[in-house]
Amino acid sequence: MSKPDFTAPVVILNEPQLAENIGSVARAMANFGLSELRLVRPRDGWPQERAWASASGADWPLDRATVFARLEGAVADLQYVLATTARPRELRLPILTPREAAAELHAAAAAGQRVGLLFGGERAGLETRDIALCQGVITIPVDEKFRSLNLAQAVIVAAYEWRMGVQDRPPVTFGKNEAPPAEQWVLEGLYGQLEGELHAAGFFHPPEKTPSMINNLRAIFTRSGLSEQEVRTLRGVVTALSKGRGKVLEKLAAKRAGEQP
Amino acid sequence: MSKPDFTAPVVILNEPQLAENIGSVARAMANFGLSELRLVRPRDGWPQERAWASASGADWPLDRATVFARLEGAVADLQYVLATTARPRELRLPILTPREAAAELHAAAAAGQRVGLLFGGERAGLETRDIALCQGVITIPVDEKFRSLNLAQAVIVAAYEWRMGVQDRPPVTFGKNEAPPAEQWVLEGLYGQLEGELHAAGFFHPPEKTPSMINNLRAIFTRSGLSEQEVRTLRGVVTALSKGRGKVLEKLAAKRAGEQP
Repeated sequence: MSKPDFTAPVVILNEPQLAENIGSVARAMANFGLSELRLVRPRDGWPQERAWASASGADWPLDRATVFARLEGAVADLQYVLATTARPRELRLPILTPREAAAELHAAAAAGQRVGLLFGGERAGLETRDIALCQGVITIPVDEKFRSLNLAQAVIVAAYEWRMGVQDRPPVTFGKNEAPPAEQWVLEGLYGQLEGELHAAGFFHPPEKTPSMINNLRAIFTRSGLSEQEVRTLRGVVTALSKGRGKVLEKLAAKRAGEQP
Repeated sequence: MSKPDFTAPVVILNEPQLAENIGSVARAMANFGLSELRLVRPRDGWPQERAWASASGADWPLDRATVFARLEGAVADLQYVLATTARPRELRLPILTPREAAAELHAAAAAGQRVGLLFGGERAGLETRDIALCQGVITIPVDEKFRSLNLAQAVIVAAYEWRMGVQDRPPVTFGKNEAPPAEQWVLEGLYGQLEGELHAAGFFHPPEKTPSMINNLRAIFTRSGLSEQEVRTLRGVVTALSKGRGKVLEKLAAKRAGEQP
């Protein structure tokens, strides 16, 4: 159960048709921290069992959803509402990308306004009179060749952009355990060992190319941002490859030597 | 029918389960200008009628979808692949928001690289060994309280961000002289050689840790963005370390054997 964020946009669905889509919208809302859902004249009435079935556990926007007979009622207490539509009309309203819209919504919410996102029904979309109740229009930048975006997809994009504005980075729960890059002297130890073994193995040939070969090798590891643990691993690799295989051959040679008459 | 954009990311679904979801993915791809879809071991086989039914007319990614038995095959010809996962593992790979990922993908594509987006199956997501084949991880900034994002939703967010980048793509002026990253199959060759030699040298100990040791090693090289020349160099390093030192010892042993009375 999400604690409601009263600054987050209310999601308003105007004449939604399929309960499954209402459930998918609830799921998308929950993913991105939205919780207040309003339904204007849902075609099949409300509540609808199938909405909960398709919400995958994001029940709270559905449990608390409110139903309105008219869009005017659903936006009555809001101060800044943006309509998402693929087909902006002749209305002289600002037309925003989802990203620009998120910035405007955050600015309005920060100024204490109640904000909302309006979406039309699956078939009809929004009428000009619906859009006229809004402060602006969001147009999702779909490919001209395939513009059909379903309801939940449009909500996902708008809600995702809102969420990106809430925090620029995803909640970093893994970063705590991430090892920082090793200090340079630790890397130097690896380079020294690797280059020493490669010299012993006759790798650097011709000799005049040795410095550039060494630089190229170091660059590979330097740009990896190796952690200390990774440097230890790589030193183990170098040891295993140079000594381990050596040992196998040493044993073989010793065995052969023992077989000498 | 969309004219394919060969700079756009290939979408790779690893072990997808429901054909309906594959169809929804195709729809999301078409919305945002992606067209090449690859399926790795789809649970119910391929083709599946229901995929087309749920694509709402976005047929071309499905018509041209290719099926692979192994993820390695599906990424073999790509140079920069990002894995989308809610649960980044212990691998030390860059963790990007979808927005940062889009910027990286555009930069790589502008430099002439073939790029891809990898998504896990509905239930299992991606294993660490799958992620280790990628150059970075995308984490969608979902609310901690409801992290469950369905497959098509994840594709929508990543594809939307790619599309946003298409619209404000800077002119391509960089990268002409820089060697591009090797294709994945070239890296596979290096990994195979290195891991074979390490096995022979008894490096992987204890045995139950072998898979995680291998993943960690691969991550080091994967995130380096190795060029083909660099892979050749590293293969030479592995050969020199494992065989070169062997040769030195072999000679020594032979000399000693010759000194035997």
